[in-house]
Amino acid sequence: MRLLTFIHDGVEQVGVRRDDTVIPVSNLLPDPPRNLQSLLDQGLQVVLQEAVPTYTGPGIPANEVQYQVLLPKPGKLACIGRNYAAHAAERGADVPTFPEVFFRGPTSLVPHAGALVRPKCSSKFDFEGEIAFVIGKRCRHASEAEALDYVAGYTLFQDATLRDYQRFASQWTVGKNFDGTGGFGPELVTADELPPGANGLTLTTRLNGELMQEGNTEQFIFPVTRLIAILSQCMTLEPGDVVSTGTPSGVGSARNPPVWLEPGDVVEVEVAGIGTLRNVVEDEEP
Amino acid sequence: MRLLTFIHDGVEQVGVRRDDTVIPVSNLLPDPPRNLQSLLDQGLQVVLQEAVPTYTGPGIPANEVQYQVLLPKPGKLACIGRNYAAHAAERGADVPTFPEVFFRGPTSLVPHAGALVRPKCSSKFDFEGEIAFVIGKRCRHASEAEALDYVAGYTLFQDATLRDYQRFASQWTVGKNFDGTGGFGPELVTADELPPGANGLTLTTRLNGELMQEGNTEQFIFPVTRLIAILSQCMTLEPGDVVSTGTPSGVGSARNPPVWLEPGDVVEVEVAGIGTLRNVVEDEEP
Repeated sequence: MRLLTFIHDGVEQVGVRRDDTVIPVSNLLPDPPRNLQSLLDQGLQVVLQEAVPTYTGPGIPANEVQYQVLLPKPGKLACIGRNYAAHAAERGADVPTFPEVFFRGPTSLVPHAGALVRPKCSSKFDFEGEIAFVIGKRCRHASEAEALDYVAGYTLFQDATLRDYQRFASQWTVGKNFDGTGGFGPELVTADELPPGANGLTLTTRLNGELMQEGNTEQFIFPVTRLIAILSQCMTLEPGDVVSTGTPSGVGSARNPPVWLEPGDVVEVEVAGIGTLRNVVEDEEP
Repeated sequence: MRLLTFIHDGVEQVGVRRDDTVIPVSNLLPDPPRNLQSLLDQGLQVVLQEAVPTYTGPGIPANEVQYQVLLPKPGKLACIGRNYAAHAAERGADVPTFPEVFFRGPTSLVPHAGALVRPKCSSKFDFEGEIAFVIGKRCRHASEAEALDYVAGYTLFQDATLRDYQRFASQWTVGKNFDGTGGFGPELVTADELPPGANGLTLTTRLNGELMQEGNTEQFIFPVTRLIAILSQCMTLEPGDVVSTGTPSGVGSARNPPVWLEPGDVVEVEVAGIGTLRNVVEDEEP
């Protein structure tokens, strides 16, 4: 099942996409949640998964909906740094022995088909295509064996970064939290449609159609199960919390000469079975 | 004006404390916001400030209310590291030339008078008393001259840290985000009651009554005005966003021998004019 947050006729709602049709959740549930966060809080994805296959009512043509940020205000949006060994190496870093974690705030997020914003104060704007997972059940002290029980599903993340600001201090938070730099979506694909832990999937990032990053989740230093075990030892993971699993090698800043995002550039992150997250780069408004 | 989030008779609400009495906001406003976040979103602190002085109706004895986390789910809760030169030195770090910023998530927060939780997996539990400010108006690209216009007020923060986890990776996020380690409150003191930028205030942290940390906000490497200018160049600051301004020297881990928090310890952060944030340490439940 593919869940999305969308606007149609001026109304923001949650839907399920089935092929070329988006079925509003309000057509499927008698007391529909107002957003995806509420749906996950109530565990309604389970009910939906039973309702969708037998639904024969109307829907909205998928090309008429405007995708919104999948979850506009996650309780926690944890990004993992250096989770592919080849990317750690190209950044001149050792392979980490414990996950590098930073958080993103909601003001940094943009939807699928929305603009990635290059700010006025820096042109060192780099792409990082990633797979993210979304927590579906409250989770503390999960073992690796049970970790995947807590995953609602998977989506894509564009962790675009201002490389100079990332390095102005030891902590990367500011360089990772510029307005409009975190592409998030397009859809939440429930875990049952993908291999356990999203293992064995190939992720590619294309810039204006040209392949820039390619990695396979088999190369994760910390697989999804291990990330959940480590994080949940320290903090409660709640429904709607998001973990973006890190980017493979091939980022622009590690190239010679470096490649920086510029206005008009089209950046796409793609994983077969999850989808394509597409964003166009724009300059910040003057 | 001193705003708080509290529970009384099983109901969570927002109040204004006047001496020994807490006035529920529902007694002051015809259409009261459901929480402090909504109050700030609507800019109602301005209306309240006019209503409170002339209010003669009933209130609740302050010793009968149970303080709750001031803002349980801020859009962003940004903590500044190493913002007092003496603390940077005791941690063996250079004085930063750009703010060290990390975010805390809502699962890490505990209220005034709530328990700070020492987790099962680490005993390297350290205190960090801090002053925090809360944003009252949406803010982007603020100059230092206008920065204080965006501050709703000031409160206190206990940025308790698992020092081993803080150092397991280059990013401090995990060591700063254990459940129940961020004391937040007790009250939001509106900016009009304090010196501009909270400048010239002395902060002390006491452990079981003994003075452990003492600093003056005059020693800030990045004063409040500069923090707002730098952060808002990069990201929109929204009503209810919180910035905790860093801790002075005297933390437990920098002492010889080190001092670690243990169950039963009482930790207090105090600033004249803001209040006292008091927490007792407990072990995580088995």
